[in-house]
Amino acid sequence: MLKPSQTTIEIRYAETDQMGIVHHSNYAVYFEQARVEWLRNAGMHYHELEKKGVMLPLINLNVDFKKPLYFGDIIKVGCYLESLPNVKMKFLYNIKINDEIVSSSGSTTHVFMDAKSRRPIRCPQSILDLISG
Amino acid sequence: MLKPSQTTIEIRYAETDQMGIVHHSNYAVYFEQARVEWLRNAGMHYHELEKKGVMLPLINLNVDFKKPLYFGDIIKVGCYLESLPNVKMKFLYNIKINDEIVSSSGSTTHVFMDAKSRRPIRCPQSILDLISG
Amino acid sequence: MLKPSQTTIEIRYAETDQMGIVHHSNYAVYFEQARVEWLRNAGMHYHELEKKGVMLPLINLNVDFKKPLYFGDIIKVGCYLESLPNVKMKFLYNIKINDEIVSSSGSTTHVFMDAKSRRPIRCPQSILDLISG
Amino acid sequence: MLKPSQTTIEIRYAETDQMGIVHHSNYAVYFEQARVEWLRNAGMHYHELEKKGVMLPLINLNVDFKKPLYFGDIIKVGCYLESLPNVKMKFLYNIKINDEIVSSSGSTTHVFMDAKSRRPIRCPQSILDLISG
Repeated sequence: MLKPSQTTIEIRYAETDQMGIVHHSNYAVYFEQARVEWLRNAGMHYHELEKKGVMLPLINLNVDFKKPLYFGDIIKVGCYLESLPNVKMKFLYNIKINDEIVSSSGSTTHVFMDAKSRRPIRCPQSILDLISG
Repeated sequence: MLKPSQTTIEIRYAETDQMGIVHHSNYAVYFEQARVEWLRNAGMHYHELEKKGVMLPLINLNVDFKKPLYFGDIIKVGCYLESLPNVKMKFLYNIKINDEIVSSSGSTTHVFMDAKSRRPIRCPQSILDLISG
Repeated sequence: MLKPSQTTIEIRYAETDQMGIVHHSNYAVYFEQARVEWLRNAGMHYHELEKKGVMLPLINLNVDFKKPLYFGDIIKVGCYLESLPNVKMKFLYNIKINDEIVSSSGSTTHVFMDAKSRRPIRCPQSILDLISG
Repeated sequence: MLKPSQTTIEIRYAETDQMGIVHHSNYAVYFEQARVEWLRNAGMHYHELEKKGVMLPLINLNVDFKKPLYFGDIIKVGCYLESLPNVKMKFLYNIKINDEIVSSSGSTTHVFMDAKSRRPIRCPQSILDLISG
């Protein structure tokens, strides 16, 4: 299986809230940015998936918040597959500050969906090949 | 011409930043919400415009920030047309706290665009009729 | 225990993404808006909690996405406590379209934290009284 | 005066809307990220400014949208000072795709404000020295 991707993100001012920390709604965006990089590393660009008529809508998002993030922090978001996908595809994430401290971790679960019928499908073989290869 | 619309919005926690006030990027969203209400009052739902093949992309956004907004504030966003539209359509906005103090004002300028050709078009007569009527 | 709160929210254009549906990061914001209303109903305004030196940082967010939301949808977000809080406080949410179809559900778990020491504390008795009362 | 800064940003999926392009509210965020880099290049970290008791609230935002931005675009945001600041400080911005095509341009105008009194002040000499140096 493909190795984990690691995405570097600098926290934006706009992402803070009046508590002085990153608002929790942004973690889903950081995870997504990491997932896009993982997919790209695997040869699966979002655009191409959509052209192939495959969508990957989210069915579950889970985030465990451990240490807050602050404006200007440079974080590294690790992203990897929990297991080989079937109808579902589950990604695990961890957000690190300074390569050491785990700020947060989480997961997103997606289903493979036919873009036309909007029905769930099995993970296409071409994608399984990319992941296993 | 259609009378101004007035949209009531309660400021969300997520919209604040570490300065303790609403982050300025949200004003464009408040303006948009007001514009959607103005258009709806005029009988122009976004969905229907899009079905008619008409798009209204933004070409200019301008905001004058006077008084900051805080979490929990109940604001009223006034929205009205500057003049009868031709190829362009310009909306003016003001954000009031407590019906009195003007917190901010601004404008957005849009062009009528054919959804297929992605080229500018004149304001369709059916829309002019709605506005003048 | 306090009865569930119900918050009506109209989906904003800015909350959609290129899939044509609400981007999943917004659900945390809808949940938060519902939670703020629940707390207000219980006599706990965020401002007052912060003045009392009590913070309620999030330690977990979980969302199950069932049906997508679209621009213009009027949703109702139900919010209620899972049980009497101790050191942690867990809220459950459900998002309904048309009072019937459950679009999504989820939870947020918070800890009571002393604003100065930034350490976890037990739920203050004054808050327990409000909830039980 | 300090030379322009150039900030590279990759467009996030969450920043698109149902028109399939970047929602206009995000441009203020891109500008801000560019401004933070300009300030950092000039030796003015936001944190240090805030420690010095100087705030730079926005009083005007203006954006001219020329070409839409799409998910995955790698943009370069140029940022520079219009002139030496006095009580106000005005930044100009341009967003380029592929180093050539100008997608958008704009400006933000800020006032120097004393963090305690919340009153406008002249640009501190220490900051003028940094800019002129």
